[in-house]
Amino acid sequence: MSGSLDCARDDVDNRRMRVLNKSFAVSTTGKGTYEITDKIEAIVRESEVENGVVTVFTQHTSCSLIVMENADPTARRDLEKFFDRLVPENADYFEHDAEGADDMPSHIRMVLTRTSETIPIVDGRMQLGTWQGIFLFEHRRASHRRKIVVTVMGQ
Amino acid sequence: MSGSLDCARDDVDNRRMRVLNKSFAVSTTGKGTYEITDKIEAIVRESEVENGVVTVFTQHTSCSLIVMENADPTARRDLEKFFDRLVPENADYFEHDAEGADDMPSHIRMVLTRTSETIPIVDGRMQLGTWQGIFLFEHRRASHRRKIVVTVMGQ
Amino acid sequence: MSGSLDCARDDVDNRRMRVLNKSFAVSTTGKGTYEITDKIEAIVRESEVENGVVTVFTQHTSCSLIVMENADPTARRDLEKFFDRLVPENADYFEHDAEGADDMPSHIRMVLTRTSETIPIVDGRMQLGTWQGIFLFEHRRASHRRKIVVTVMGQ
Repeated sequence: MSGSLDCARDDVDNRRMRVLNKSFAVSTTGKGTYEITDKIEAIVRESEVENGVVTVFTQHTSCSLIVMENADPTARRDLEKFFDRLVPENADYFEHDAEGADDMPSHIRMVLTRTSETIPIVDGRMQLGTWQGIFLFEHRRASHRRKIVVTVMGQ
Repeated sequence: MSGSLDCARDDVDNRRMRVLNKSFAVSTTGKGTYEITDKIEAIVRESEVENGVVTVFTQHTSCSLIVMENADPTARRDLEKFFDRLVPENADYFEHDAEGADDMPSHIRMVLTRTSETIPIVDGRMQLGTWQGIFLFEHRRASHRRKIVVTVMGQ
Repeated sequence: MSGSLDCARDDVDNRRMRVLNKSFAVSTTGKGTYEITDKIEAIVRESEVENGVVTVFTQHTSCSLIVMENADPTARRDLEKFFDRLVPENADYFEHDAEGADDMPSHIRMVLTRTSETIPIVDGRMQLGTWQGIFLFEHRRASHRRKIVVTVMGQ
């Protein structure tokens, strides 16, 4: 009887699911990419999840998330130049411009990129590729305080 | 012995993971954005998950999901005008036009936006930012019945 | 006493969460779309998860994931032509071109599409719509070996 109970408890412990929700803020100082990989890695370590996923979510409609090449800064600079050309400010058909010329383009750039990203965790480590970093992509010119919510789930 | 068992059971109950899968349909009447935030919030409440994530998934290749500014309708109108310009109908190089001029553009607009989105749940509430709403983005002109699958997972 | 224990164990068994992480490689031979739906379905079956989600993640910054129309190959061909026009090679403002003319465009095309995708599982089956397939979208001209990480989580 006691053996059976121990067995049941081991079962629970070994397979116990953990859910950790944490948030942090990023202070941005104008349009551009801000790396947040280290902050997310720290939350994954804190969760002690060995096997599962981490979801990153940004709570805004004028900034977004991207996974991007993290070694050569010219890659991110070219990306930003591309988006400035793809979604021009002052398009003559924009009605939504109460907050300035970068208001509507910021929503469009957000829609074209990502609000949530989910990354696998194996053996306690986020499974990013060699050149992958996670970045907040700020689309507004003015300084902003951006909130990121991170959820780690797994065993 | 009985104490140990109670302890084991509490452990199970407190950390019990729940998974709730539900789907619903959205009737669309032409190109545009259709808010579905309330439907997803209702499923999150029904799940009684306090801490976890909700995944929203659309089962189609000619509509998509976006998280978007939900206060000022001009923001969504400008977004739609941008997509009409970015992905023109009747591009002379399109081969796939069996279902009309909005057929191929609808697949491209879907690929440029999202099929799934994952939103954290903390204290039983979906962690959307103040101005964030979840929308079905319909890319076809004709009326359609679109199916959304929602999965809530957590404790 | 024995009855209570059995009850506790059933509880654990019925609601036992499973997490399965697996990866596989895709050999690509130039720009284009490569279907990976079958590989992901096989991992979902192997997991024996009945109710949950599967997350697909690509570990690269010059290829990406898309959910796309899987019936008519002309739809994917038109999609590729669209991306060739949207993100031109040899833009005169690109600085990041160490690996050739398709280097920077590949990062931009990746950012405009997806790195992770999450699909619900109900009754042991991935809930893709009738015309949905999951594809690796290769953005480089040269042959590459691409790694995909798949995480199945649920009960």
